[in-house]
Amino acid sequence: MSSSKHPASTSFKAPDSSSLQLNDQGKLRHFLTTDGLSKQVLTEIMDVAESFSGVAEQAVKKVPLLRGKTIANLFFENSTRTRTTFDLAAKRLSADVINLNIATSATTKGESILDTIRNLEAMQVDMFIVRHADSGAAHFIARHVAPHISVINAGDGRHAHPTQAMLDMFTIRRVKKDFKRLKVAIIGDILHSRVARSQIHALNTLGVREVRVIAPKTLLPSDTDSLGVHVYGDLKTGLDDVDVVIMLRLQRERMGAALLPSEHEYFECFGLTEERLSYAKPDVCVMHPGPINRGVEMDAAVADGPNSVILQQVTNGIATRMAVMALTLGHYATGKSS
Amino acid sequence: MSSSKHPASTSFKAPDSSSLQLNDQGKLRHFLTTDGLSKQVLTEIMDVAESFSGVAEQAVKKVPLLRGKTIANLFFENSTRTRTTFDLAAKRLSADVINLNIATSATTKGESILDTIRNLEAMQVDMFIVRHADSGAAHFIARHVAPHISVINAGDGRHAHPTQAMLDMFTIRRVKKDFKRLKVAIIGDILHSRVARSQIHALNTLGVREVRVIAPKTLLPSDTDSLGVHVYGDLKTGLDDVDVVIMLRLQRERMGAALLPSEHEYFECFGLTEERLSYAKPDVCVMHPGPINRGVEMDAAVADGPNSVILQQVTNGIATRMAVMALTLGHYATGKSS
Amino acid sequence: MSSSKHPASTSFKAPDSSSLQLNDQGKLRHFLTTDGLSKQVLTEIMDVAESFSGVAEQAVKKVPLLRGKTIANLFFENSTRTRTTFDLAAKRLSADVINLNIATSATTKGESILDTIRNLEAMQVDMFIVRHADSGAAHFIARHVAPHISVINAGDGRHAHPTQAMLDMFTIRRVKKDFKRLKVAIIGDILHSRVARSQIHALNTLGVREVRVIAPKTLLPSDTDSLGVHVYGDLKTGLDDVDVVIMLRLQRERMGAALLPSEHEYFECFGLTEERLSYAKPDVCVMHPGPINRGVEMDAAVADGPNSVILQQVTNGIATRMAVMALTLGHYATGKSS
Repeated sequence: MSSSKHPASTSFKAPDSSSLQLNDQGKLRHFLTTDGLSKQVLTEIMDVAESFSGVAEQAVKKVPLLRGKTIANLFFENSTRTRTTFDLAAKRLSADVINLNIATSATTKGESILDTIRNLEAMQVDMFIVRHADSGAAHFIARHVAPHISVINAGDGRHAHPTQAMLDMFTIRRVKKDFKRLKVAIIGDILHSRVARSQIHALNTLGVREVRVIAPKTLLPSDTDSLGVHVYGDLKTGLDDVDVVIMLRLQRERMGAALLPSEHEYFECFGLTEERLSYAKPDVCVMHPGPINRGVEMDAAVADGPNSVILQQVTNGIATRMAVMALTLGHYATGKSS
Repeated sequence: MSSSKHPASTSFKAPDSSSLQLNDQGKLRHFLTTDGLSKQVLTEIMDVAESFSGVAEQAVKKVPLLRGKTIANLFFENSTRTRTTFDLAAKRLSADVINLNIATSATTKGESILDTIRNLEAMQVDMFIVRHADSGAAHFIARHVAPHISVINAGDGRHAHPTQAMLDMFTIRRVKKDFKRLKVAIIGDILHSRVARSQIHALNTLGVREVRVIAPKTLLPSDTDSLGVHVYGDLKTGLDDVDVVIMLRLQRERMGAALLPSEHEYFECFGLTEERLSYAKPDVCVMHPGPINRGVEMDAAVADGPNSVILQQVTNGIATRMAVMALTLGHYATGKSS
Repeated sequence: MSSSKHPASTSFKAPDSSSLQLNDQGKLRHFLTTDGLSKQVLTEIMDVAESFSGVAEQAVKKVPLLRGKTIANLFFENSTRTRTTFDLAAKRLSADVINLNIATSATTKGESILDTIRNLEAMQVDMFIVRHADSGAAHFIARHVAPHISVINAGDGRHAHPTQAMLDMFTIRRVKKDFKRLKVAIIGDILHSRVARSQIHALNTLGVREVRVIAPKTLLPSDTDSLGVHVYGDLKTGLDDVDVVIMLRLQRERMGAALLPSEHEYFECFGLTEERLSYAKPDVCVMHPGPINRGVEMDAAVADGPNSVILQQVTNGIATRMAVMALTLGHYATGKSS
């Protein structure tokens, strides 16, 4: 686990994803980060996700779009939850899935990852879903795969988790329709969060009015200034008049360590209660990537309350992952981008 | 593992399944226990199982009945064997299956089970196959799922294991045709057996002439009197003139403990030998849910002998599970119940 | 793990496969070993593999040949890599696959294996893919299965690994066209290698000009004389004028033990470098079953160099396994054998 190290210090080169994600026609080929992708590309992902939302309500929850394609779940870091959503998304597109849990030390670094990739390529795998504790792992793989293969980043170190960010954007769009007027607050451990970075890039690209982060100073990254966010140190001022609240998941095993307060102290200052939520707009929507630690990040009354869209996020997660899979494999044309 | 506790003392409310299993039209919606289900419903399960028995003999062992449905195996207690039979049954109905082994302490109780369920619901899962060490777990989940979702109990604590009981009923019907004249003896650790309870309810509902249990007193539950069975303390009188012998599986790891004799002592008194089997009718059929401990519950000569229908039980298990899946999801109409 | 014992000393009877693999019409029914199979049968496997090679290049990488068939991966010894290739091959033939990892002590010997087999038969499984640490395990199962079931040996002890051998033969044929003029050298730990035995039988049956083994004396089996090979103790003379070099995988955990030198010493004498490879023909092709220990068995420059066909072996492995599955289940007729 090098996720506690700074991204730049990992074994993989610092990500340089500007051109890597798009093909010559400007179409999505890999999906590694929301950073650097245009509003048009992000909007296309949501449009396709919207079209797939209906699939889950059909009697037969399947489309034959990726029939005969082979998708490999390459999880170097365990995550039953995230893997299950990719697995389901792939099955609903009629793809074949092979699951490879490689959460062992020997085969998780540079050369041996390449050997694994080369072997799976030789088996004519079409797509890699990559989760890895090191920042840049998905980029590293994307730089080395054969031209016809797509790589989707399912979370790399503290760098990016772009499908989570896009399912959040898709959820916001379904509830709020338009991004333009929105004030969005992200609350929690920004420093260690790959989700927060991907969300901030996406929210700014989609043109929200304001992105705020609310966190103790010790949980802010050193490059916060360059992220295009407003920083708040308390919920009262930070939540004032916001339309969307995005809670981050706290890694309980980290609480009480050097940088972090105890669970109790954290909840005292940053835990979301119904009372505190009243600082925000009445129709504020509350988001959380799950699983929730009730009583740590937020009260059960908020998590299960009328403003919560947490379960809609889960539903939208399947459609969003289906969209990213179909788009990167070139099996979906919306006709909206040239 | 709270399976050693009395059902009423578990963390889940005492099961109340009377109305929970049927929908407004009296059709099976969940399958949690054989207790309280009518003869008509049990018979319909066997009729549909009969129709699926042919599927496994076709060149293409599949029907498209549940294509596009998503079935989640929720095994809070490990059981490769049982899970494999549900997995196969689902595949032969063309459903998509996701396997979630959650045999870890943190996520197996009340609130966190509900969170897991809510998340899987949000992923548009259609059916949960639930195995749990606590009695009442499947009922608990059934009481909380969305209206379109079906729950099948794959074994909860010492409470019920209804698909095992129904595959046994189906096997008896295929061999003996009619339940009316049958004397059936269940031998072994009735106290700890979820299977025995489900069998006794089903046998009585289907109208067999007599249900006997043969066991040492220490392995009888305190409510034996209310179960509608005749109790025997030895094989000689208990097996006299019976048509069907159902052996229970002994948990070897429990043998020699407070309530239980050693394996050797047990076999001396209750082990089924060819000689002892001769007390029963000549065409008695011998059943066991597997895996068999040869030399503990019965001699190899009996397990593999001409009266054994143990492997037919396995075959019938697939058809029975297909039937329960298809019926609860409303994708099978026999026209026999209104 | 009894793979360190001599085959004859295992719990299974010495393999006797002459007639076991073929049905009355001389067609392949099981695939347990290359030993004793005719040139015609081996050629048919390669012909069918050739026809399946195209499938992986189609947009839809699937054929419906084994739709509705159930294939059980019975891996008594862990091997994610090999299992994945069989899994993929089965999925590309549209079969349903159930994975049973039984790498636990209790259920891996004689009687309990039979119980497992009988149960899976009763579930109407059509094919067993068997990997086991004991030589003869796949034969044992093949001798006991029902007439309609096929068994494929995915590696048993130090005895045989015939699908690996056949993917190697298929790779050689694709590169060299004809076996007749070829000199083939196998380098490494012949003694412990199930692959080497299967390769030697196949190469001799297919009529290559010469099979050589290059190994330290301590890594040669006692019956080397009867294998129909020429033995060389050094790379310089052994590689002279050869067309194909097959490297065996070294079990690093064995290095430095009684019979084996250290990794460093081994590489000094038997490691394949570019310089040493120059003793062979210029168009020599270099093979390895993977995963490669670079710097132990061979230099990275050789493994990734122009003569290496190692990744082609992986690709051909899927087609070969598809061929063996389709042929043994009688779902492919080439019309070439009567």
